Amino acid sequence: MTDFSSKRLCVIGVGLIGGSLVRALRQSGCVDEVVGCGRGRENLELAVELGVIDRFEIDPAKAAADADMVVLATPVSGTAGILARIYPVLASDAVVTDAGSTKGSVLQDIRDQLGEIPARFVAGHPVAGTEESGVGASFAELYQGRRVILTPLADTDPEALNRVKAMWEAAGAVTCEMSAEHHDEVLAATSHLPHLLAYGLVDTLATMEERRELFAYAAGGFRDFTRIASSSPDMWADIVSANRAALLPVLERYLADMQTLKSAIEKDDRTALLDSFSRAKQARDRFSRLVGRFVKPGDRE
Amino acid sequence: MTDFSSKRLCVIGVGLIGGSLVRALRQSGCVDEVVGCGRGRENLELAVELGVIDRFEIDPAKAAADADMVVLATPVSGTAGILARIYPVLASDAVVTDAGSTKGSVLQDIRDQLGEIPARFVAGHPVAGTEESGVGASFAELYQGRRVILTPLADTDPEALNRVKAMWEAAGAVTCEMSAEHHDEVLAATSHLPHLLAYGLVDTLATMEERRELFAYAAGGFRDFTRIASSSPDMWADIVSANRAALLPVLERYLADMQTLKSAIEKDDRTALLDSFSRAKQARDRFSRLVGRFVKPGDRE
Repeated sequence: MTDFSSKRLCVIGVGLIGGSLVRALRQSGCVDEVVGCGRGRENLELAVELGVIDRFEIDPAKAAADADMVVLATPVSGTAGILARIYPVLASDAVVTDAGSTKGSVLQDIRDQLGEIPARFVAGHPVAGTEESGVGASFAELYQGRRVILTPLADTDPEALNRVKAMWEAAGAVTCEMSAEHHDEVLAATSHLPHLLAYGLVDTLATMEERRELFAYAAGGFRDFTRIASSSPDMWADIVSANRAALLPVLERYLADMQTLKSAIEKDDRTALLDSFSRAKQARDRFSRLVGRFVKPGDRE
Repeated sequence: MTDFSSKRLCVIGVGLIGGSLVRALRQSGCVDEVVGCGRGRENLELAVELGVIDRFEIDPAKAAADADMVVLATPVSGTAGILARIYPVLASDAVVTDAGSTKGSVLQDIRDQLGEIPARFVAGHPVAGTEESGVGASFAELYQGRRVILTPLADTDPEALNRVKAMWEAAGAVTCEMSAEHHDEVLAATSHLPHLLAYGLVDTLATMEERRELFAYAAGGFRDFTRIASSSPDMWADIVSANRAALLPVLERYLADMQTLKSAIEKDDRTALLDSFSRAKQARDRFSRLVGRFVKPGDRE
């Protein structure tokens, strides 16, 4: 682990993700000044009150000037636009990273807006979160033991990459690297698809006449299953739209599998149901200790 | 609340559901002797060891003889067969109830096997559980504040109904009544469908080549979403098969809604995504305090 320190860290988007990162870095004592930026003045004022940021600017260029590390923790569709605004004023040694849930779309948007990916921009995604949003929901332990996936390019500055790695490690996370394309496929299956299915289920029930009664008689399993449907609709419409290329194939595969299950129910084919449920239980029990945790190469499944 | 007491309670199926009921009744001091019965001798021996039951019989008829209350907490497909076996030996004042997750199929099976529904049989369903099974997973607090839905018929003995209500209330639950048909529709939407979707998702991912990596990079939301896929495959194949008539329409409705969402993603119609996600979040936040809790008629949504 490399040591991380920052004289002035700028976080654009001081919500659950950005706020929790800053809280963790403050706890490990490796940041001097933190400047926040975001669209909601009220949230920024709360962030100052909570001691998460020292001060804020509404203009991203003003916020990022003279920072040695800039973290973009905004909805993915806004990332490239903000980078384009701050790029001209950045200090020459400043490193920029993002925390968006999709990586291919962010990199493409940056290419579209800047003509290239700056060598000192490192794309990243902390695989952690709750269904809450806003700085009020942030907490220093969010990244403890969780993975942060970095998707550097061939011409990413190695020193910038190391600095971003060191920052996340100082926040308690475990970093790893993969291609942006692979990241988007993995997250489509394990995060974007489940969110879509949970939103879909709650919406289906919410449009049924007896909805009040339905929810009243639901049990704890339903509450867990639908928790992610309480996540920010804006953020998730953004993610689903940004990662549609990777999401659509796995959604199609899932819907085809559900059609097969539906046929099994229609034919009352208990063997087929039992086979599918048993495979699923076995997979979940086998893999559940892996979920969200760091696994060393060669660890037993 | 009527007082409940039993000189000899017989529980057939001493797992999470039956075991937790007995533990709760023992805590409130309203049962003298508890006789267990079930297919797995090992589980029954453990139930004696844990002090859940006093003794056990392998033959249901022997277990139920001289009991004043018999609880059938077995997979739903076995309920009628067991009732048929114990019916001839039951004491004339004995009350029988079940704890199965489907009600229409259980009542129909009993009609098929006995020619009628005994007046002192009260169909019921405690809407509570975890993904664990077996007596080792049982605990006295499982039913605290949870709903138990009873589905009495026109000729159900009112005294038998009151006794079953009193028993569940002594275990900490809140009882309510509705028709078996309505019960099956409500549970199809809020319990059986989510279990099917969770099993389906885990099975879809488990059959993908990169499954190990997928699970390793999944976050906490995925763990919550798929927890119910760790439930007993046998029990759930049984429930899905038994309640297929009520489950198929709501599954079809859900799959149609998901096709609409898929089209919205294909057309990159962010407004449609945002509308659906927002409706879902609003519904979940609004109703989440209701989930599994007792609501007095007239309570604000």
